[in-house]
Amino acid sequence: MTFDNPVFVTYVIAATLMILKSMGQVGGGFLNPEDKSAGWANPNPRPGQLDPDDYVERSRRMHHNDTENIPVFLVAGLLFVLTQPPLLVAQVLLYGFVATRLAHFWAYFTAKPHEVRATFFSIGSLIVIGMAVYTFMYAIL
Amino acid sequence: MTFDNPVFVTYVIAATLMILKSMGQVGGGFLNPEDKSAGWANPNPRPGQLDPDDYVERSRRMHHNDTENIPVFLVAGLLFVLTQPPLLVAQVLLYGFVATRLAHFWAYFTAKPHEVRATFFSIGSLIVIGMAVYTFMYAIL
Amino acid sequence: MTFDNPVFVTYVIAATLMILKSMGQVGGGFLNPEDKSAGWANPNPRPGQLDPDDYVERSRRMHHNDTENIPVFLVAGLLFVLTQPPLLVAQVLLYGFVATRLAHFWAYFTAKPHEVRATFFSIGSLIVIGMAVYTFMYAIL
Repeated sequence: MTFDNPVFVTYVIAATLMILKSMGQVGGGFLNPEDKSAGWANPNPRPGQLDPDDYVERSRRMHHNDTENIPVFLVAGLLFVLTQPPLLVAQVLLYGFVATRLAHFWAYFTAKPHEVRATFFSIGSLIVIGMAVYTFMYAIL
Repeated sequence: MTFDNPVFVTYVIAATLMILKSMGQVGGGFLNPEDKSAGWANPNPRPGQLDPDDYVERSRRMHHNDTENIPVFLVAGLLFVLTQPPLLVAQVLLYGFVATRLAHFWAYFTAKPHEVRATFFSIGSLIVIGMAVYTFMYAIL
Repeated sequence: MTFDNPVFVTYVIAATLMILKSMGQVGGGFLNPEDKSAGWANPNPRPGQLDPDDYVERSRRMHHNDTENIPVFLVAGLLFVLTQPPLLVAQVLLYGFVATRLAHFWAYFTAKPHEVRATFFSIGSLIVIGMAVYTFMYAIL
């Protein structure tokens, strides 16, 4: 876990990109009664602003999906790199996960058919499962 | 944090099991307008498929509960093992948490009375709180 | 990552406080059909108990907000301290995040105008983003 270990550097690059992706996804919106009052965050309140909004609800579901997957990936990836895997394997899995999440974002944001989104989601999930199973086996053997 | 340290190995086993549990819990389902079109992930679309479904909603609440607890456990456990606790203590707490989550899953899935689920949930939460308090005290003393 | 490194100790203090904050936030409530039966967790069931309740829904939104932010902070902070930043910088950022979350809790709990809550939330998010960008740059350079 030092920055002169290229496997660890691979992890740090993938992890920080996923952290930034997660922070950048709008998950909030106007949810609470007090959010209806005017202010810099809501200069023009209007009736119905607390109602679900297609765009905001979609972004919220995307953020929710990030919340379910990215923290688990961050820990699974960290434990996986502690098993000292070959650099190429680490790069394929860790950067592969980042790529599937970006592709999932694109498929979700542009409302592509469910299959497209599900394919990227499944590949990302299989990467996390694969790293966790490998690390578990490494630990018990 | 090396694999010849039995306390760290205990953590890795508990952590990877919890990661796999979290990945295995279905959290998704059909949520978006585009999910109504036919494809391999939804071969027979039908009206009302986006409506809440008892089984899917239950699984989603269970996944949500995992999302709230497992990432926090993963970090709390990692910091706890860095305090170099006795092996037996680490095994009781870390495997104990895994056991309470599996029991919570069983109680939730079979819709056992709220008390059963709440008991397992509370024991798991107390383990995380205990590890965090101990680690906090260890850090400031 | 040892307890004689004051930067790491700063991280452990901030991380365990955030773990305890996250565990202390009630996120549950009565959600499932089986939760209507009487027992120690619900001594006096009444009709409508599964309906959304203003207080519980607010707490649930607050917990949800924790779930979205705290795990990502825990990993971002850990990777940041591995870059060996100056102690003062680590203290300002890590304790600063803790302070913004506590202030966010207060603003949310007392239903302060959206701007107050959004300000604390934004400062906390900027701290995580700043740590992640710095760690990313440190890794690739």
